[in-house]
Amino acid sequence: MKVSVLRIGHRLVRDDRVTTHAALVARAFGAERIYMTGIDQSVSKTVTGVAKRWGGEFEVNVIHDWKALAKAWKKEGGKVAHLTMYGINIDNAAEKLSKESRILVIIGAEKVPREAYDLADYNIAVGNQPHSEIAALAIFLDRIFKGKQLRKEFAGSRLKIIPSESGKEIQEVK
Amino acid sequence: MKVSVLRIGHRLVRDDRVTTHAALVARAFGAERIYMTGIDQSVSKTVTGVAKRWGGEFEVNVIHDWKALAKAWKKEGGKVAHLTMYGINIDNAAEKLSKESRILVIIGAEKVPREAYDLADYNIAVGNQPHSEIAALAIFLDRIFKGKQLRKEFAGSRLKIIPSESGKEIQEVK
Repeated sequence: MKVSVLRIGHRLVRDDRVTTHAALVARAFGAERIYMTGIDQSVSKTVTGVAKRWGGEFEVNVIHDWKALAKAWKKEGGKVAHLTMYGINIDNAAEKLSKESRILVIIGAEKVPREAYDLADYNIAVGNQPHSEIAALAIFLDRIFKGKQLRKEFAGSRLKIIPSESGKEIQEVK
Repeated sequence: MKVSVLRIGHRLVRDDRVTTHAALVARAFGAERIYMTGIDQSVSKTVTGVAKRWGGEFEVNVIHDWKALAKAWKKEGGKVAHLTMYGINIDNAAEKLSKESRILVIIGAEKVPREAYDLADYNIAVGNQPHSEIAALAIFLDRIFKGKQLRKEFAGSRLKIIPSESGKEIQEVK
């Protein structure tokens, strides 16, 4: 399955670090790319810098019209999953979701416009409590990839961690 | 199992939103409390406001000396799990962890002092890629609570969501 993430509603400066975390989670948990609107240059710089050092083919795409993007995605046969605390519990949808071939995951900042709910093929809740779109994205990707993303190898990385019980072991790949 | 979260290394303003997300994830994913150092008042206000409206007994404790706290925790028989990309993969430790009765989960901001690694009974990686302490905390709690936290009911809530496929359904509890 191929997954892209669409981050909407980013507010300059205020959301920079949260959006950066969301992008890094998208990459580390197996998505192919993140689309972002209205971000500061520093956000995409940080994320592409990480992708360069740590490998893989993750893309950061800055876009202007997220509705046009989501509509085009659906027209090409992809599905849209919007993460919201108001949706259906992920555990009731995970099986169906893992049969899809292309999913665009929409995550919003504080207030998400009505159109996101309407455009979505799935409105998915990672629990019905208020928490964090970063956590919601992580659990969503964890469920649809069945935990395997945590062992994914990233091709072409310059750095590699050797898991350790007590300290930091890091390898430079030559 | 009883779990508390300890957030260290918070940088004023810059980390406010990330720390708020971490605290809300701690609550929504079944921890009993979060200890935080050096936070802005607004962070604990937001979190206690959410806990009031959405129920449960979640506590926010602002502390000054996190090392003293972790040492006291261990002295009373509790275990300390530090989340770090350098650690042992969560899936290799989850079974052992779920047999513990009291866990203090340490999550840091950018750079974590050596003492955290040394104090920890477990240094746990949620994947060995850089991403987000919010995502790491969510997956950690998800694994040790085996996903059940997403269906937890919060006693005394004023608001309750009715899961919906397409919109927002919210109930005021009287």
